[in-house]
Amino acid sequence: MLGTYIENVRKCVPLVHNITNYVTVNDVANVLLACGGSPIMSDEPEDVAEITAICGGLNINIGTLNKRSIESMFTAGKKANALNHRVLLDPVGAGASTLRTDTALKLMKEVKFDVIRGNISEIKTLARGSGTTKGVDADVADAVTEENLEDAVRFAKRFAEKSGSVAAITGAIDLVADSERCYVIRNGRPEMGKITGTGCQLSGMMTAFLVANPDHMLEAAAAAVCTMGLAGEIGFSRMQEGDGNSTYRNRIIDAIYNMDKDTLDKGANYEVR
Amino acid sequence: MLGTYIENVRKCVPLVHNITNYVTVNDVANVLLACGGSPIMSDEPEDVAEITAICGGLNINIGTLNKRSIESMFTAGKKANALNHRVLLDPVGAGASTLRTDTALKLMKEVKFDVIRGNISEIKTLARGSGTTKGVDADVADAVTEENLEDAVRFAKRFAEKSGSVAAITGAIDLVADSERCYVIRNGRPEMGKITGTGCQLSGMMTAFLVANPDHMLEAAAAAVCTMGLAGEIGFSRMQEGDGNSTYRNRIIDAIYNMDKDTLDKGANYEVR
Amino acid sequence: MLGTYIENVRKCVPLVHNITNYVTVNDVANVLLACGGSPIMSDEPEDVAEITAICGGLNINIGTLNKRSIESMFTAGKKANALNHRVLLDPVGAGASTLRTDTALKLMKEVKFDVIRGNISEIKTLARGSGTTKGVDADVADAVTEENLEDAVRFAKRFAEKSGSVAAITGAIDLVADSERCYVIRNGRPEMGKITGTGCQLSGMMTAFLVANPDHMLEAAAAAVCTMGLAGEIGFSRMQEGDGNSTYRNRIIDAIYNMDKDTLDKGANYEVR
Repeated sequence: MLGTYIENVRKCVPLVHNITNYVTVNDVANVLLACGGSPIMSDEPEDVAEITAICGGLNINIGTLNKRSIESMFTAGKKANALNHRVLLDPVGAGASTLRTDTALKLMKEVKFDVIRGNISEIKTLARGSGTTKGVDADVADAVTEENLEDAVRFAKRFAEKSGSVAAITGAIDLVADSERCYVIRNGRPEMGKITGTGCQLSGMMTAFLVANPDHMLEAAAAAVCTMGLAGEIGFSRMQEGDGNSTYRNRIIDAIYNMDKDTLDKGANYEVR
Repeated sequence: MLGTYIENVRKCVPLVHNITNYVTVNDVANVLLACGGSPIMSDEPEDVAEITAICGGLNINIGTLNKRSIESMFTAGKKANALNHRVLLDPVGAGASTLRTDTALKLMKEVKFDVIRGNISEIKTLARGSGTTKGVDADVADAVTEENLEDAVRFAKRFAEKSGSVAAITGAIDLVADSERCYVIRNGRPEMGKITGTGCQLSGMMTAFLVANPDHMLEAAAAAVCTMGLAGEIGFSRMQEGDGNSTYRNRIIDAIYNMDKDTLDKGANYEVR
Repeated sequence: MLGTYIENVRKCVPLVHNITNYVTVNDVANVLLACGGSPIMSDEPEDVAEITAICGGLNINIGTLNKRSIESMFTAGKKANALNHRVLLDPVGAGASTLRTDTALKLMKEVKFDVIRGNISEIKTLARGSGTTKGVDADVADAVTEENLEDAVRFAKRFAEKSGSVAAITGAIDLVADSERCYVIRNGRPEMGKITGTGCQLSGMMTAFLVANPDHMLEAAAAAVCTMGLAGEIGFSRMQEGDGNSTYRNRIIDAIYNMDKDTLDKGANYEVR
């Protein structure tokens, strides 16, 4: 049962270093606090090695990358690897520009990631080594559906095998796979797509789950995905007439704050293929 | 009736590239999603041309400008012009510093803007080619009132004519003008001034309205102003005892999320002069 | 009574220049507006001298420092000193990295600060001239408790004397001291630690209090601490089943928005030692 993995986060209070975009960074910090972790942000090359050294995990998100922060991603990533910390890549917008695609691919070569979490278009771009995406959202043509699920699961496993990282591909149906097993997760609500940064928030939170469950990368990543999706369901159930995406954002973070082992065990909706 | 213009945004789902300040960027993203658009942020010179190419509109906001982002503004602005995308300038703090004033004026020379949206002090600074403002808020001495309305309308039209851009001047009374017609808008609430970034949010949303209504710059800009102001009224009506500016911020974004053609048609409060 | 000091903020509407981290900057802006101040952000070296010149106070927060913003901190700090503006330092993460510690110490040498506000681990690092902290949160071993209060008060006074700045050390028990007197404040709630940036928010708000009460640095700083803590209590009293840290964040800012002289006079919980 996945509830144990969030319980471990609350016990461990993992300190997570985030090199992340300035659009959603505040929500990433509050979600990390909500799930029981502790966030720290730093993206200056001269600062990141020491900051990442005092943490247990590193979350690299290329959402508003620039020359300075890219340098920091490599420096911090290598340092985290050297210290055997957990490291996650969120390749925001890979496929939308050459700089984003190339940075993500180069990071995958020079840094060992425990998990790569993105939407299906971003992960397909990384699998192909090039590609195009419609901005930071997944292309409809790429969407994982009940019809193409078999193929998508196979793709996720193969990507995990080739990259050496757990693949966490989120969308209407979420896939979290290593080379042999794939969690197919059906939590969440379509309205979550109307809130900026639920993916970024998930990546930050997932890094805390990885740190707190060092021997269970696949299950920890799946538990984080279920936590986010279930929080989306619980938050939605608390919406009232006239509420919209801003209140929904607060409700989801609140639901993560209140998530416990039992709630997650009961609400997590997944199968393993 | 202006309701059609938001309906078009929801149908078109315009992708808007924002080079904007880090203070209010998260709200800008959520407001863009609330109105039916889709946001993407990028401010690295090497990244912006490709990012803006996949979008339909570009929102340039100089609120926390720096050397790097300034370079990106010119690169992206020229690229957007070359692709005939809609482009908007929000000259935050023009008049408050030489760098801000000069950057805004230089942008106006080298980039063709469909709309320039700012407070009256900022726009007066741009009209004069120099000036001083009290920080990022309009100077009281500049305020558009019922008493000086005739003059202000004339000023707005002349600014639009000279700049070649629709002028969107927001305050207690909002003016949206091209060289011949001026929407005088009386939506909104004074308490909106106690929330950071309602102007930035409006600029992001307005860019989506421009993209979705390419043949109606003036009306689209006016519709965005009415949407924001009306959302301010609706949001305020939902405030409860003990609520303050933080809840009000959420309520306004929620109201935009729920805004439809009929609500906007009925609630928009304007005259054309 | 401390209520007078917030009343003065609402009368004066102090314009505060913030060079602050991008994690919590939006909340800092909204808290400044909530308490009656007016925020402006700028961190480009070429921009900051003019921006700080039009303000009454400068809030320097090293939370996500980089080479560019560090240069801006020195430029703005010296300019603010030359103009006799109020200046505050928030040494986020001092002790967590060499760059942070060294930057804070060098700022203290070259800029005169009216107040230095941090957690106990950060302030101890500055007192020693070096040190380690657990990320951006205070180390448990450093915590100010009823048991070590005498020593902590003595430490705060000595730090104030040596640094020439009022020391505002926040935690479960808050200490605000000059060389002779120390406010020992017992407002606040432990749940505030589950919201990112309550410290940053306090620093921004405190700067407004300093500007509006130029002859009472110690009392103004203490009043700001009581305002934040009391808002934390009031906000918590409005929490409902299912609410969490995201709603709590909104409730606290709302409570600051509604804070008046009487509420602060009645709710402030402090003694002077």
